[in-house]
Amino acid sequence: MIIDCHGHYTTAPKALQDYRDAQIAGLKDPSHIPAKGSVKISDDQIRESLENAQLKLQRERGTDVTIFSPRASAMGHHIGDATTSRHWTEHCNDLIHRVCALYPKNFVGVCQLPQTPREPLANCIEELERCVNELGFIGCNLNPDPSGGHWTAPPLTDKSWYPFYEKMVELDVPAMVHVSASCNANFHTTGSHYINADTTAFMQFLTSDLFKDFPALRFIIPHGGGAVPYHWGRYRGLAQDMKRPPLTDLIRRNIFFDTCVYHMPGIDLLLKIVPVDNILFGSEMVGAVRGIDPETGDYFDDTKKYLDQARGLSADDKRKIFEGNARKVYPRLKL
Amino acid sequence: MIIDCHGHYTTAPKALQDYRDAQIAGLKDPSHIPAKGSVKISDDQIRESLENAQLKLQRERGTDVTIFSPRASAMGHHIGDATTSRHWTEHCNDLIHRVCALYPKNFVGVCQLPQTPREPLANCIEELERCVNELGFIGCNLNPDPSGGHWTAPPLTDKSWYPFYEKMVELDVPAMVHVSASCNANFHTTGSHYINADTTAFMQFLTSDLFKDFPALRFIIPHGGGAVPYHWGRYRGLAQDMKRPPLTDLIRRNIFFDTCVYHMPGIDLLLKIVPVDNILFGSEMVGAVRGIDPETGDYFDDTKKYLDQARGLSADDKRKIFEGNARKVYPRLKL
Repeated sequence: MIIDCHGHYTTAPKALQDYRDAQIAGLKDPSHIPAKGSVKISDDQIRESLENAQLKLQRERGTDVTIFSPRASAMGHHIGDATTSRHWTEHCNDLIHRVCALYPKNFVGVCQLPQTPREPLANCIEELERCVNELGFIGCNLNPDPSGGHWTAPPLTDKSWYPFYEKMVELDVPAMVHVSASCNANFHTTGSHYINADTTAFMQFLTSDLFKDFPALRFIIPHGGGAVPYHWGRYRGLAQDMKRPPLTDLIRRNIFFDTCVYHMPGIDLLLKIVPVDNILFGSEMVGAVRGIDPETGDYFDDTKKYLDQARGLSADDKRKIFEGNARKVYPRLKL
Repeated sequence: MIIDCHGHYTTAPKALQDYRDAQIAGLKDPSHIPAKGSVKISDDQIRESLENAQLKLQRERGTDVTIFSPRASAMGHHIGDATTSRHWTEHCNDLIHRVCALYPKNFVGVCQLPQTPREPLANCIEELERCVNELGFIGCNLNPDPSGGHWTAPPLTDKSWYPFYEKMVELDVPAMVHVSASCNANFHTTGSHYINADTTAFMQFLTSDLFKDFPALRFIIPHGGGAVPYHWGRYRGLAQDMKRPPLTDLIRRNIFFDTCVYHMPGIDLLLKIVPVDNILFGSEMVGAVRGIDPETGDYFDDTKKYLDQARGLSADDKRKIFEGNARKVYPRLKL
């Protein structure tokens, strides 16, 4: 079985965005009283949104199941307040649940969290419990910067996140570290903000004893770990200078990288540098890069192709990356 | 000749930091009237600070000349105001000038700029002219985030930077894109803030027509280009989706990466991905990582060793990376 650990519902029916637009418009009207309201989408509309996108690509590429979450760039935790974020998040997660119910062999849910810049964890524990216990989700996306590029929240290693981590450990679910859209003109959302957040989170983990406090806490750092594998020597050297544990010890049971790196030399580096037990197959499909690479004739984000072509990867290694590691990191995955 | 394009005076005599400490202390005293004051350092103290550090390492590693600038993490543009930054910057640059005068065969100067978050360019043109025309400097370090990790300035492609770029072109000097210390707890200075800034700047350039407006403007993106070579497929794909020029066209005459990547697989990737004409030898020595790699027995930042060991690099390619490209990018280098 081939498990893609990183897929977002980027193709959701238009009614979802209409809801969000109306919600945001309401924020500008002082007389408006926020209400959760409803998102009217039929099962057929859901099917239509997936059949010619994620499902078609699964079939074409030969992958089996996608660990599926709401569109990351649309989480928009910086918009409105905790109530705004809770209403929006519940709708987004409910829609993922409907996708998983319609296609139980193709999708397993991971939830967005109702984060908000000033109280990043308000409502998050409750929503995580709802999604895991009631909707059958197997993980969450945790945004290290709910301000959307202003980086006003404390680092992921700050004690203020600990109650949430306790719940993650109790439920035995991991988090993918994933920011949302940037509202800072310095950062392009998918070109720099995403990658920077990955690098930032890794360095936060490197400089902290978080995993001493939570030995069972697990994070997936997406997009191949940001800049980390390319600068592995820098991080090994910094860890050594700071008398921190070797990187392989740091990550062993707690930090995992996906394979969302869109060219063969990048994948080769990832496979060479990061222990095979810490790599999970992911494609970010349908995601940041949608075109076909003129150099190969294949989709940039068809990361299965790179793994199939990778030299020196044993059949056992491939099974780990495609399936075994995901089952370890997401033990609630029962397919 | 082997030219190291990236060295900072991280070993400056203690009197420099004493000056800075007093300057910062003065900021807290409302009755204090800022004055430039002086930094008392003898020629012998300068010699001593270099003989057992940068000069020793130049000799040991077999490099000839270092393009040398003030300590990047100490630029601290977020501290105080434009006057604070001007006084501090002038002293730092004057000290680099003294280094270059004492060791004219070993060091060539690149200046710090007196940036400040609210008026990032106040005084910068004047200081650039002083350093280039009066002190013989050949380039500058431009901080894309003078706020120190809050990213409050406009992107490097914003028109507000244009007067400075006009002066750079007029003087025919390049800028290295280099942030200073992070005062945001999310970002480790050398582990994530530096690398993120590199990635961020590249994506700003990718999405703008800056080099149409300034065909002769040249930037060095340090630390091997941040995450960019590792994610080259992502950037190629994003450029294609956005109908931007191919990356090799984007960078050809305007963007250059140094070799501050501290392990062989990272250097191999850089050399494989980035056109050889756009790579400049750099070591960041004495810099972010000071230890010896137990896997090789060599200093992590002895990047010349990696280049000497790189397979498939012709003698001509090596000459470009070690010398030729630096002479093109820094035409005022006359050694």
